[in-house]
Amino acid sequence: MDSSNFTDLDTSTRILLGPGPSAAAPRVLRSMATPLLGHLDPEFLAVMQEEQELLRFVFQTRNEMTIAIQGTGTAGMEAALCNFIEPGDTVLVAIMGFFGERLFEMARRYGAQVDRLEQPWGQVFDPAEIAAALQAREYKLVALVHAETSTGAQQPGISEIAEAAHHSGALLVLDTVTSLGGIPVEVDDWGVDVAYSAAQKCLSCPPGLAPLTVSQRAMDLLHKRKTPVGNWYLDLNGLEKYWYAPHSYHHTAPISLHYALREGLRMALEEGLEKRFSRHRQNAELLWEGLDGLELPPIVPLSYRLPSLTTPQLPPSIQEAGVRRRLLEEYNIEIAGGFGPLAGKIWRIGLMGYSSRRENVVLLLSALERILRE
Amino acid sequence: MDSSNFTDLDTSTRILLGPGPSAAAPRVLRSMATPLLGHLDPEFLAVMQEEQELLRFVFQTRNEMTIAIQGTGTAGMEAALCNFIEPGDTVLVAIMGFFGERLFEMARRYGAQVDRLEQPWGQVFDPAEIAAALQAREYKLVALVHAETSTGAQQPGISEIAEAAHHSGALLVLDTVTSLGGIPVEVDDWGVDVAYSAAQKCLSCPPGLAPLTVSQRAMDLLHKRKTPVGNWYLDLNGLEKYWYAPHSYHHTAPISLHYALREGLRMALEEGLEKRFSRHRQNAELLWEGLDGLELPPIVPLSYRLPSLTTPQLPPSIQEAGVRRRLLEEYNIEIAGGFGPLAGKIWRIGLMGYSSRRENVVLLLSALERILRE
Repeated sequence: MDSSNFTDLDTSTRILLGPGPSAAAPRVLRSMATPLLGHLDPEFLAVMQEEQELLRFVFQTRNEMTIAIQGTGTAGMEAALCNFIEPGDTVLVAIMGFFGERLFEMARRYGAQVDRLEQPWGQVFDPAEIAAALQAREYKLVALVHAETSTGAQQPGISEIAEAAHHSGALLVLDTVTSLGGIPVEVDDWGVDVAYSAAQKCLSCPPGLAPLTVSQRAMDLLHKRKTPVGNWYLDLNGLEKYWYAPHSYHHTAPISLHYALREGLRMALEEGLEKRFSRHRQNAELLWEGLDGLELPPIVPLSYRLPSLTTPQLPPSIQEAGVRRRLLEEYNIEIAGGFGPLAGKIWRIGLMGYSSRRENVVLLLSALERILRE
Repeated sequence: MDSSNFTDLDTSTRILLGPGPSAAAPRVLRSMATPLLGHLDPEFLAVMQEEQELLRFVFQTRNEMTIAIQGTGTAGMEAALCNFIEPGDTVLVAIMGFFGERLFEMARRYGAQVDRLEQPWGQVFDPAEIAAALQAREYKLVALVHAETSTGAQQPGISEIAEAAHHSGALLVLDTVTSLGGIPVEVDDWGVDVAYSAAQKCLSCPPGLAPLTVSQRAMDLLHKRKTPVGNWYLDLNGLEKYWYAPHSYHHTAPISLHYALREGLRMALEEGLEKRFSRHRQNAELLWEGLDGLELPPIVPLSYRLPSLTTPQLPPSIQEAGVRRRLLEEYNIEIAGGFGPLAGKIWRIGLMGYSSRRENVVLLLSALERILRE
């Protein structure tokens, strides 16, 4: 092989307005150029401890077990299920999009008897519907998505669902991948048992870590399992012993990504959650107004529309993939198309973390207007 | 929370001479400051494709299925097992240290009937012993470690073991975590079916990716499974569709770590494998000579001693943890202690990738001499 075939990395500077990754903040990117510490170095353990404190802040929780799973968001989802499911356990999944389907499929892989509740993609559940299902059968665990990245819908009434879950004896597992850091996620106030997220959405970090927080009640269930956790890498028994004393080796931590997440979380703390949520909201409203002007109204009603991910409905006259290609090639803007039943019918426009900026919205709208009016 | 409690990241510059992570090369660290591309951006798919070509080069393979698993080395190990094991399958694991034990435990979690062959930690197998076990019972898969990171021993005769495996109809899974890029790993010539490694050892990259290469024979077995792969994140069926056409979403790739791995592999190509192996060998010999002078001879005989990881035997007079602490605090040098039966009895000194440097060896020996003679 000839090394001259492999040149210096020379990438375009994209404006990332898809469903994730969103832009990593320059401070975050720079932090990864820091030389490595060993994964058991006292200085690195201190970095992790700060990261945990900052994660508790964004999750609004006092859960002792608050860490970052060392894979992307899907690994967070898998950790949130596999640690609490034993073969034969009953699980309820409320599905209103692609990631609800993924929860369902994953729970089945771990041997659960999984029941499904469904809403059409783009809609949300009446919390009473989930509460009723929790009364009708005894479940060990109920899982659902707070912010559906495939549709742009935000499930309301999480605290009501949590109350019903606890009343029935079930754990509540909540996917906050596209909500954490962009809209309120109040793990303790709502009574969520297990919540997971991803670094590359509203936290302005590169992908590769999945924040996870687990209530004591859920940890107790983990510790009382009769069977080993089906997944070795994501086994919280081993991860607990690494993140907490005795800090024994489970698997090596991706050091640079922890530097990055700590920095991204520090920026969230500096900005303040209220101000951050309001920034996400304001930029989303500017986008929605512009999309209305382009006759591309979001498919999700305002009452449960996510500020972090907007999904305009596309008229059949628009060649959606062609427009996206032009946005990328002519403007360096990335947005995404729809999945499954929404393929070809919507775009997915993310305004998350560092990508949630007024200038990005205005540029996207102008670029779209120029392309569409041709 | 007060943001002034979380200061700029300000870490010591460690000289990483433990079992990993080793030092990431400055070029590699810098590559991670590159702004993110989307995980389906054509430019990113091109980065991945180059990474795959470079991985085939270091693995010395033409295997089409050559990728990086998106977790640390342990995730590579788990991917190498869970994709090829169905519940009830027979598996043989040859154990000569901690990571062999981990292979055994992991194979059991996926429901295999696992037999074990054992050698005392620090020794290796006569390939004929493994061949005999493969004749005595029919196995679907045999797994072993090429370079035992817990002991510093290098298993010889991999091609002989591969031949016996294939003769008996078994797949050979090989752990090359501490060998790939530091000593020859010849996947095709040896006939290894599945080999995995880790970015943070002899490839001079940060942890977080696990190179993996899979023969067509093993891929055929995967495609003919009767049960779904037990692990969702590591399911090669999904990863195959992401890395290859149609490039459909399985889980988000940790973009920055792929930039890093591509850069680390590019450096390996520029250096050339022969020259690289010889550098690892020469620096190891310098270390061994110095350790002999300090009366800390390696526990592993020269004939199967790893150049990438050296394990000196410690006399009872040495307070091993205390010396390591002084190395860290006074010299910023990290080395590691032993695991399991070797705890307290050895150190583990890595000279891997960018850490394999003459100046590191000389500094370590001088620092040890100063500490030990006090």
